[in-house]
Amino acid sequence: MSELSKTPEPPYYAVIFTSRRAPEHEGYGEMADRMVQLADGQPGFLGIESVREGAIGITVSYWDSVEAIDCWRKHVEHREAQRRGRTEWYDEYAVRIARVERARSFDREEE
Amino acid sequence: MSELSKTPEPPYYAVIFTSRRAPEHEGYGEMADRMVQLADGQPGFLGIESVREGAIGITVSYWDSVEAIDCWRKHVEHREAQRRGRTEWYDEYAVRIARVERARSFDREEE
Repeated sequence: MSELSKTPEPPYYAVIFTSRRAPEHEGYGEMADRMVQLADGQPGFLGIESVREGAIGITVSYWDSVEAIDCWRKHVEHREAQRRGRTEWYDEYAVRIARVERARSFDREEE
Repeated sequence: MSELSKTPEPPYYAVIFTSRRAPEHEGYGEMADRMVQLADGQPGFLGIESVREGAIGITVSYWDSVEAIDCWRKHVEHREAQRRGRTEWYDEYAVRIARVERARSFDREEE
């Protein structure tokens, strides 16, 4: 992906997903793309930013409530991706759910 | 960088820094490395994860309190890096301060 998310004024929620991918990860790219597409259609979704540099990836998705995050976590297709993540694609990962309390931004074109 | 952070049980705080770097960014790499090194010595610092893919970067640092984040934000050398970020290195960025409320992790070697 190549754009930063435009989010509303806080408070809202962030899911910080950090991962170390396994050397073998067939099917990962397609599933990652599909998950972004799928998240984008979920209730309460505010945006997603995702970057990978070698084995290490950070994906941050933004949501309007904890309930929206729980709902996304339990989505049947997402659960299958989570299962394959543990069994096939990731050597390590962490998921952190955080309440965004303050935010500021800078855009050169708007200065 | 190449490792995920080991953080304590929530609650703690995350600073989510997302950026789009300018095409010209001389001196950026050295300053970025220096900031990681400097953050690591600050009171209340818990860890940092940073990934860049082309122009887009995500850095998440973890802290034990909002006070620790404010203190780091005001660090004189960090302020100078922030100033150069706006004037030279970044076309766009966002800083979000978030309270981590839930976390879970997976490590293949520990399963």
